[in-house]
Amino acid sequence: MDQIHEKKKITIYDTTLRDGAQGEGIHFSTQDKLSYVKRIEEMGSLIVEAGWPGANPRDEEFFQQVRDLRLPYARIAAFGSTCKVNESPQNSEILLKLLASGAETITIFGKAWDLHVRDVLRTTLDENLRLIRESVSFLVSQGRIVFFDAEHYFDGFKENPDYALKCIATALDAGAKIAILCDTNGGSLPGEIARGVKAVMEAFELQELGIHVHNDSGLAVANTLVAVEAGVTQIQGTWNGFGERCGNANLSTLIPLLQLKGDYTVVTDTALLKITSFSRFVAELSNAPFDEKQPYVGRSAFAHKAGMHVDAILKNQRTFEHMDPAGVGNERRILISDQAGKANILDRLRRFEPTIQKDDPRVEQAMTEIKELENSGFQFEAAEGSLDLLLLRIIGELTTPPFEVLDYHVWSDPLRGELDSVAVVKVKVGQESVHIASEGNGPVNALDTALRQALVSFFPILGKSELVNYKVRVLDGARGTEAIVRVIIDTRLEHEVWGTIGVSKNILKASAQALLDAINWTIYCGEVSRHTSSGHAVVVPN
Amino acid sequence: MDQIHEKKKITIYDTTLRDGAQGEGIHFSTQDKLSYVKRIEEMGSLIVEAGWPGANPRDEEFFQQVRDLRLPYARIAAFGSTCKVNESPQNSEILLKLLASGAETITIFGKAWDLHVRDVLRTTLDENLRLIRESVSFLVSQGRIVFFDAEHYFDGFKENPDYALKCIATALDAGAKIAILCDTNGGSLPGEIARGVKAVMEAFELQELGIHVHNDSGLAVANTLVAVEAGVTQIQGTWNGFGERCGNANLSTLIPLLQLKGDYTVVTDTALLKITSFSRFVAELSNAPFDEKQPYVGRSAFAHKAGMHVDAILKNQRTFEHMDPAGVGNERRILISDQAGKANILDRLRRFEPTIQKDDPRVEQAMTEIKELENSGFQFEAAEGSLDLLLLRIIGELTTPPFEVLDYHVWSDPLRGELDSVAVVKVKVGQESVHIASEGNGPVNALDTALRQALVSFFPILGKSELVNYKVRVLDGARGTEAIVRVIIDTRLEHEVWGTIGVSKNILKASAQALLDAINWTIYCGEVSRHTSSGHAVVVPN
Repeated sequence: MDQIHEKKKITIYDTTLRDGAQGEGIHFSTQDKLSYVKRIEEMGSLIVEAGWPGANPRDEEFFQQVRDLRLPYARIAAFGSTCKVNESPQNSEILLKLLASGAETITIFGKAWDLHVRDVLRTTLDENLRLIRESVSFLVSQGRIVFFDAEHYFDGFKENPDYALKCIATALDAGAKIAILCDTNGGSLPGEIARGVKAVMEAFELQELGIHVHNDSGLAVANTLVAVEAGVTQIQGTWNGFGERCGNANLSTLIPLLQLKGDYTVVTDTALLKITSFSRFVAELSNAPFDEKQPYVGRSAFAHKAGMHVDAILKNQRTFEHMDPAGVGNERRILISDQAGKANILDRLRRFEPTIQKDDPRVEQAMTEIKELENSGFQFEAAEGSLDLLLLRIIGELTTPPFEVLDYHVWSDPLRGELDSVAVVKVKVGQESVHIASEGNGPVNALDTALRQALVSFFPILGKSELVNYKVRVLDGARGTEAIVRVIIDTRLEHEVWGTIGVSKNILKASAQALLDAINWTIYCGEVSRHTSSGHAVVVPN
Repeated sequence: MDQIHEKKKITIYDTTLRDGAQGEGIHFSTQDKLSYVKRIEEMGSLIVEAGWPGANPRDEEFFQQVRDLRLPYARIAAFGSTCKVNESPQNSEILLKLLASGAETITIFGKAWDLHVRDVLRTTLDENLRLIRESVSFLVSQGRIVFFDAEHYFDGFKENPDYALKCIATALDAGAKIAILCDTNGGSLPGEIARGVKAVMEAFELQELGIHVHNDSGLAVANTLVAVEAGVTQIQGTWNGFGERCGNANLSTLIPLLQLKGDYTVVTDTALLKITSFSRFVAELSNAPFDEKQPYVGRSAFAHKAGMHVDAILKNQRTFEHMDPAGVGNERRILISDQAGKANILDRLRRFEPTIQKDDPRVEQAMTEIKELENSGFQFEAAEGSLDLLLLRIIGELTTPPFEVLDYHVWSDPLRGELDSVAVVKVKVGQESVHIASEGNGPVNALDTALRQALVSFFPILGKSELVNYKVRVLDGARGTEAIVRVIIDTRLEHEVWGTIGVSKNILKASAQALLDAINWTIYCGEVSRHTSSGHAVVVPN
């Protein structure tokens, strides 16, 4: 009888909350960290390195509070370093604070590159070994599981391999459960990583070995892959590749890569379906930009712009997709731009009129209008709500707009205090016209409030939608505040989020255009969901 | 006598203007493309694939105009495909338009994966070979140098290696100067790339071979590296990794990687110093976001946030930098954030007061103020102008502000036409007060204009600075237009660009804060450059 082939299990060690937070522009509050560890439970069992208690007062607070959560899957690790030169571990503030955090798993880093021992610690190679040995054994004697991060292992291995290996041996002998080989500066090539891992695998009899690499050469994913192929069982990384300088190995890429293309089990199949939304959640939480070009999880990862690609994809998905986007919870997108072919526009028009044919003159008309608007600064890729309104109009579905704006103006007096702006709006719905003035925090908020107040009694669905993002881009930087401004507003209606766009020299006018499109699109969605048999299922939120 | 070791020469084939433009959010006008090819001359000799004449009318226009430029280094290539099924090359509109472009080098792609032949072309495997053979030999007979992109070569090689190799053989026999092996869907692993390249190297006696990969698995850089190690001589890629879906192999990473860490010559040493500014230029030209985490060329690539790293870097640069940032025209940055240690703040304070010591109470004060402001929504990493103003105040240098704003308010009436906003500003400089009203395109422009008009006669340097970017971020998305808004303004004074920041619920108030900081910082720079012996050289533009 054949044996069932078991895929090798790879453990995730997620350092987003610690090394990720070292990235430029990344910030997590204590509350953010608690939300994070609650939500990461959906990824199944993994280890979360959540901070350095002692180095940052917020981290101490976090470790206190996280104890009250009952997390069935995630293991929380505290991060820190060995004790200091000439210090005994019993008197080390660093180690005592790590113990005080209550974390069962403690990861400490120690120097594995002689250059660092000499130039940063400014001590002897033997003293550094003592720091490693005594720190590890002290934490172990206190009943903790100790992980040892061999900082700069690969640089150390290149320059003084004996010493680098001696650091690992010292930590393991002192009771460290696992050693993690670090390419802290991110400068190593895949061949160097393979050699460094193999040297450790050959020197010690190991059940477990970890890898921690940075992306300074654009090779963090490849280097982690190479390390796994050479025998590593634990991969350290961060979601979206956040982290110091160019970031850490990107878990959002590595998890699907190892699981779908390699012979490894990293997460459950159910968890794999959630990695797109989880990656996005992490970006939102940290308030950092999400790289939409990211493999697997980016909005552009399965977005097709070239007309010829779209044509082929519609014949056979494999022609231009290396995997099924649904496998990671992502989706295919057919982009509409001035590079779009008829196939792209036809595909989108068919959401509204499934039988429309390629030679229908409205397809040509849509292409022309879109290209003209894009030439004047519009960009529909990020504003699918505005795009669909335009297509609906061309199809002849939205010939009578649900309301009309007769007039609006805005005053601002920012030195006055809180509600410092006033908008006056006059709208007409059917035969009725409404004139409303509203205060707001700033001119755009005043305008938004006035428009919604004027319209919500006619269109109650407006009470359910909310503006979730507001983006402004100056299109012709050289002309400063005089330049054309593009505003994109993202609106959420139940679980769907879509963008609308406005372009003008006046930021308020561009904002008003985008707001009006958002309102019109919301009203349209409300109408459609009241008549769900109309075949518009694709665009209807829930 | 020892032979002088010659590094292997790798040729760059830059497809930013063609495959790069397939990326979501990337757009180049004809004028953009002309600026691009003029500026890329500073990179030395390389090949620029500039568009597909015939598929896009703007590309035909470009190829006409580029003939008038005399480019000593860059070779311009036109891109297209083989003729169509059942078509003779003499009657192929595609090939005739490629010839009409006047490009000396023409790159055509043909299918090398039998799946595409069957499902997309819907023809026989033999007919596909005819398309390749006749298209290549027709273009060669017209005196052109022909490059053959073997589309989907690696997927084809996995599923039907004989046929994939036959496609290459056909193109080479027909006179193609070079074949380029494409991982069009970006799904191949490094091992698969190595095998695919080696198979071609073994089957044919080749002087030249190209590689073109996409980043759908986060491996484009590694896959290109592996291909070069296996014998490839030409690398196709794009600056900043722009391109369809997850993008192409990133030239901004590959050039320094191959040249500094591999045994290859890619560009001259002088050109290497320019890749940071060139990468940034390409992003600005295409109006796409620049990934600041990018290896080598990103602003974060050598940015240090952790206090401990900063401390070590100041002892020995190698401790936390895998190379000298100056080698690629980039620079080290010490970040100031709520994660910053004293070393970071001390380093920055020393730009203004070189002798300030770690235990000076002003260092602690600066840390406290910065952490408080960051907690309320400020982010100084992108606003070094505002940060330096704060530090100067703490040091005691800017105790008397050069001017004071007594009052300002703004009216907007966007339906009124062009100049639809008016700002009224009252400022005081010394004993003089000025009251000015200014029109503008929108409220922020009106305010900017009014402030500058009121102040320029007192501070003529304001006539030299210009606002080059204006960014808005909603900090708490869930609260929509009511939320806190962060405005960052980038200002250029001669060759230096720096950011200033404002945070408020009112977008106008946040903009005014950022504008006022920009003006104050400009005035400060003007003062300092009038007294260049004052030891402030670091912060003085030119």
